[in-house]
Amino acid sequence: MNEHLAALQAWVGEEGLDLAYISDPVNINYYTGFFQDPEERITALIVTPDKDPFLFTPQLTIEEVKKAGWPYQVFGYLDHEDPFAVMATHIKAVNPNPTKWAIEKDHVAVFKFEAIMKQFPDATFPVDASRFIEKQRLIKTPAEIKQMEVAGAQADRAFQAGFKAIKAGATEQEVAAEIDYAMMKEGVMHMSFGTIVQAGVDAANPHGEPMGTKLAPNELILFDLGTDNHGYMSDATRTVAFGQVTGKPREIFDICLEANLTAMAAVKPGLKASELDKIARDMITKAGYGEYFNHRLGHGIGMSTHEFPSIMEGNDMILQPGMCFSIEPGIYVPGVAGVRIEDCVHVTETGCEPFTHTSKEFTVING
Amino acid sequence: MNEHLAALQAWVGEEGLDLAYISDPVNINYYTGFFQDPEERITALIVTPDKDPFLFTPQLTIEEVKKAGWPYQVFGYLDHEDPFAVMATHIKAVNPNPTKWAIEKDHVAVFKFEAIMKQFPDATFPVDASRFIEKQRLIKTPAEIKQMEVAGAQADRAFQAGFKAIKAGATEQEVAAEIDYAMMKEGVMHMSFGTIVQAGVDAANPHGEPMGTKLAPNELILFDLGTDNHGYMSDATRTVAFGQVTGKPREIFDICLEANLTAMAAVKPGLKASELDKIARDMITKAGYGEYFNHRLGHGIGMSTHEFPSIMEGNDMILQPGMCFSIEPGIYVPGVAGVRIEDCVHVTETGCEPFTHTSKEFTVING
Repeated sequence: MNEHLAALQAWVGEEGLDLAYISDPVNINYYTGFFQDPEERITALIVTPDKDPFLFTPQLTIEEVKKAGWPYQVFGYLDHEDPFAVMATHIKAVNPNPTKWAIEKDHVAVFKFEAIMKQFPDATFPVDASRFIEKQRLIKTPAEIKQMEVAGAQADRAFQAGFKAIKAGATEQEVAAEIDYAMMKEGVMHMSFGTIVQAGVDAANPHGEPMGTKLAPNELILFDLGTDNHGYMSDATRTVAFGQVTGKPREIFDICLEANLTAMAAVKPGLKASELDKIARDMITKAGYGEYFNHRLGHGIGMSTHEFPSIMEGNDMILQPGMCFSIEPGIYVPGVAGVRIEDCVHVTETGCEPFTHTSKEFTVING
Repeated sequence: MNEHLAALQAWVGEEGLDLAYISDPVNINYYTGFFQDPEERITALIVTPDKDPFLFTPQLTIEEVKKAGWPYQVFGYLDHEDPFAVMATHIKAVNPNPTKWAIEKDHVAVFKFEAIMKQFPDATFPVDASRFIEKQRLIKTPAEIKQMEVAGAQADRAFQAGFKAIKAGATEQEVAAEIDYAMMKEGVMHMSFGTIVQAGVDAANPHGEPMGTKLAPNELILFDLGTDNHGYMSDATRTVAFGQVTGKPREIFDICLEANLTAMAAVKPGLKASELDKIARDMITKAGYGEYFNHRLGHGIGMSTHEFPSIMEGNDMILQPGMCFSIEPGIYVPGVAGVRIEDCVHVTETGCEPFTHTSKEFTVING
């Protein structure tokens, strides 16, 4: 049994649970190596304290579960069958009346929760599996760090594809297309989120999508992108100058870069997440742009692009080796410019290492 | 107020509810024209029977809500604030103690449900908003059909891009890359799901992803793809011959096409969804391939690729004008070949109209 799954099974035993019902497809991937979003269909991993775990999936998914190397049983159901009724028969074959359950409260919708209760009226939910799993996923193993380094190297190549596509008159959308195309051509079929390319004042919207805006010389261009390397994500942002960029846009670039580099250098085990946020935020505030940095410094990353630890005010979680998160100060001045500079890092014994290595220095590209 | 939102507000009144809490980002798009997946953050639309509705979103999203043309109030919260506590103050400003709630039980996770209960201990949930909304979304308005026709035309162009990319030695992944690239170049930034290209025996796996398999002459190639046209989805499948294809693969192609055409011709208001499934299934079964058609005939489509009505055994829902769904018989013979032929259609007064028009006849492509 792999170490992730073994730890989950041990936890089920320690908590005195009859079973854990795991249904978030990302968590299932974490424990089994099998990933599929079943959408409105049902996929679940059932873990009891002392028997072999099993997977329950739509019938037409079973072959893929086997291909993924799952060594235990997998049971299926057909589209016209009631999945919870079918699943209940398999659960009851292991334990006729499981009463102490753990479900992922972050994932299980009320409707499915009620469907479980209908099959198992005596079920109780003394602990929340989401809380255990988020803690378990918080500290990455060396094997996971390796997968994230591969994803980071993909992101570095994606930046190069994007920088190469910069030319006057190309739209943000066309440049984003070149990035995704380059990744797919090398076999990276999923970006970890929709590739963001924003030129000039468009970048002042920190959550905007690429639009039909045409690139024009003497503006900043922001690239925020990442890849999905077999379930492990990368995420990084670079802001580069297309031609000559001076004045306020250059000023906020320099402040943002300094905040990024200072925060990167400050990471070490024992620091609080909130303290790290404050280091970058204080610098930007002191420079007069505090109100334009309107999001947290960073988010955890791993098998999802947003997980723990959250690097923000109010989160006093203490940083430890193996934690992975983004450091992404941003300054967004409406009508003027937007700058964000982001690497994801993993905490080491003495500091941190970034997953992406594309230069962050002020870079001029003449498309 | 747009007709979707007006109908929701009327329903809140008719049910004697104090408020509806709508948080599925697709439903929020349906009611407001604003779409964003907030991931772990919170976005909600609050609808009471007699006051103006309002949106509640992360602070950094507020500008985008306004850009989307939302004419009512929008309130934000910062990352370090408790979203449910902040939202509760805005709800209480409208109604100090709302007790009768509707939430989307298909969407609201147990954790968030408990967070709502903590703010509103007297809240009860007499009806499920998911059930109302799925019925409302089931019948598309003419304006929605128009959006889906645009998405269908995009899918038709995507097929042409895919067919053009067929050549010996190209991988499935490379062909899929050409399709997505062509779509992004024309400004379609989101496919409705990961583009599927499967050559030869790979297509016998009905849920497989494109792999590194190289295209070789004299095999079938299956394309399953769709686009997201401002929230309205297309989804279609074509299976074409690369070079000369005879024998069993050609035989199952012909059976599958006949099943598709027969089902398409059978659609009319008054028919049951289960009857439509049976028409196609019986043909395939009679031809000896029933066991190789291991999924339902179709799924509803609209603002999501899988919604109601489900065209399957056991679903006796009666087809009505304005319903939109896929008709996608498939025959998957492991080690031999896989064929699926799919159009999405909308039911008219007398039959149905497909959203995609790429030829379904046996097509030979010499790459």
